[in-house]
Amino acid sequence: MTTIVSVSVNLFHIPLAEILVDAKHGDHTHFELITATVTLADGREGTGYTYTGGKGGHAIAAMIRHDLAPMLIGKAPDDVEAIYDAMQWHVHYVARGGIASFAISAVDIALWDIRGKTANQPLWKLAGGKGRTCNAYCGGIDLGFSLPKLLDSIQGYLDRGFNGVKIKIGQPTLEQDVERVAAVRKLIGPDVTFMVDANYSMSVDEAVAAANAFRPYDIFWFEEPTIPDDYRGYAAIAEIIGIPLAMGENLHTIHEFGYALEQSKLGFIQPDASNCGGITGFLQVAEMAAEFGVPVCSHGMQELHVSLLAGLGSKGWLEVHSFPIEHYTRRPLEVRDALAIAPDEPGIGVTFDWEKLEAEDLLSRETRGAA
Amino acid sequence: MTTIVSVSVNLFHIPLAEILVDAKHGDHTHFELITATVTLADGREGTGYTYTGGKGGHAIAAMIRHDLAPMLIGKAPDDVEAIYDAMQWHVHYVARGGIASFAISAVDIALWDIRGKTANQPLWKLAGGKGRTCNAYCGGIDLGFSLPKLLDSIQGYLDRGFNGVKIKIGQPTLEQDVERVAAVRKLIGPDVTFMVDANYSMSVDEAVAAANAFRPYDIFWFEEPTIPDDYRGYAAIAEIIGIPLAMGENLHTIHEFGYALEQSKLGFIQPDASNCGGITGFLQVAEMAAEFGVPVCSHGMQELHVSLLAGLGSKGWLEVHSFPIEHYTRRPLEVRDALAIAPDEPGIGVTFDWEKLEAEDLLSRETRGAA
Repeated sequence: MTTIVSVSVNLFHIPLAEILVDAKHGDHTHFELITATVTLADGREGTGYTYTGGKGGHAIAAMIRHDLAPMLIGKAPDDVEAIYDAMQWHVHYVARGGIASFAISAVDIALWDIRGKTANQPLWKLAGGKGRTCNAYCGGIDLGFSLPKLLDSIQGYLDRGFNGVKIKIGQPTLEQDVERVAAVRKLIGPDVTFMVDANYSMSVDEAVAAANAFRPYDIFWFEEPTIPDDYRGYAAIAEIIGIPLAMGENLHTIHEFGYALEQSKLGFIQPDASNCGGITGFLQVAEMAAEFGVPVCSHGMQELHVSLLAGLGSKGWLEVHSFPIEHYTRRPLEVRDALAIAPDEPGIGVTFDWEKLEAEDLLSRETRGAA
Repeated sequence: MTTIVSVSVNLFHIPLAEILVDAKHGDHTHFELITATVTLADGREGTGYTYTGGKGGHAIAAMIRHDLAPMLIGKAPDDVEAIYDAMQWHVHYVARGGIASFAISAVDIALWDIRGKTANQPLWKLAGGKGRTCNAYCGGIDLGFSLPKLLDSIQGYLDRGFNGVKIKIGQPTLEQDVERVAAVRKLIGPDVTFMVDANYSMSVDEAVAAANAFRPYDIFWFEEPTIPDDYRGYAAIAEIIGIPLAMGENLHTIHEFGYALEQSKLGFIQPDASNCGGITGFLQVAEMAAEFGVPVCSHGMQELHVSLLAGLGSKGWLEVHSFPIEHYTRRPLEVRDALAIAPDEPGIGVTFDWEKLEAEDLLSRETRGAA
């Protein structure tokens, strides 16, 4: 049986076209992309990845290189779920969650890429095979946009064929948020799905007040009203407001998803395979969510999640995130009749354009500048 | 006002005298020590640190170097609590807990070192000033020891003047654990405080069975019977067994401590300033624990925690851990009349012997070997 002979890591700092702002993460000038390529003795290889909003990439790369790679080399690659468990226990003392979840995710996705290529199966089939399409919406990181610019960006989503949009909230006053929500609803009309995202910037009381003020505008979900750690606070909000709540991008272990599903009265769950344990972690969350009857959505890396939501036959929505990882792959997201279409090639269906990545990488430029 | 001009990081891999084994972390051949030295424009400096069981050190060092240092440089060092909050938010997306908690801890401890030196105050005074001594016990990583060797090591603790001892449990059968517990109690007599630690290797049912079997041997606390994530599982065990439960080394955020204190019916809480947010994080946990009436103990790095438990006037117990960080400092732990004594020098009272560290550092040796 063939074994893993190497795990190589790349870290890219990719500049954003403009500075993007949300309520709690400050200014995004770039994002980090961390890739992990697993190579087998027989020459097969797979590439997985994770990303961040600009911090932590070096730590993620260091953990893959110094802690995960040494334990993976010499192992058979086939039992991905067993390797996943072994990785979790291997770094348990300096985990659980946080950087370790990002690092494990990248490696796990690489192993699924090998699994798919070996079985000659696309990811949507490996993930359940229920279908090749899913609902999709565009999520802007647009808290810093002026109202005209916000409406321009929303119009751009509609022009690209999407029938769902999400904006950031968390302006200095609630009146400003309401003004923006009202203007967006007026622009998109009654039939486009519309979500808001506070990036956990509000107290429970503030979130309730905001939801009440948004009531006339048919909000499909209210994302991360308050800090992800306050599971019962979510339930307190949900019981009052009558708008479904959503969260998931800041839940990094199956236990954290368990607390949220048990305690938070969520309408939607939004795992991100880049930080909840890769495809193995995502599918564990989907299984748990199904038990609670909560539809699975996604956060970020749409080029990968499309296959998971489609294959699972999820009634949830794929987020088309503003970090354009897909622009650095060979297959940007395909959307037809407002539905996102999963790639049909064997493996995870995400192949990076390494030359384009290297050409834009701030880090290489800094290194070159320093040399 | 003076500002921070640099944050320098060192990573040491320190070999253990012998391989140490517990129920879930595998073989410990060495531990990692990560130091962070903060230097101010006026020349003042402070050094903090964290440690691991052998994995994650590179990731911790990378986060301090690439994510925390850039945001700290130029800041005034005085409002340590504000800097602590700023660090938490700065890396929030790739946190919370895990590697970020270790990295933030090292920096926070360095800032407290500066605070103490600036105020010309020892840490026990800054932490509350209630006293200079606290209870102390020796905790072995002794699951792999034969019974004669286990008893030898326990006798060694008694010979050094301690009146509390802890052993690892989690042998292949409960009978073996009971045999060891019985033999230790027979050796130490009825007056020495005796704890057991399962390193979360048991199910709830297994933990209940073990506790029932240990009942004749007057166990002071049962540490980490099951996984730290199962807060309610702890409560289920506590309600049945009649032996106080303890945990904390695997809780890394104030929220995790909140869940444990609210849900787990703990008898003792054991924060570790190296991974719960440094001295700021430890004092937050102590304040929360006081509200719940749960005595604060500690895990690891006794040379630092002695000042916190003594200064807080805690009725809990200081763990004297088997990772001998104190041997690489200028002041190994002082014990008199079975009580540990806090250092009285300004700052955190932990000064590293850098030459000794460098002489034993596996990493430097590997690097030298590779050069």
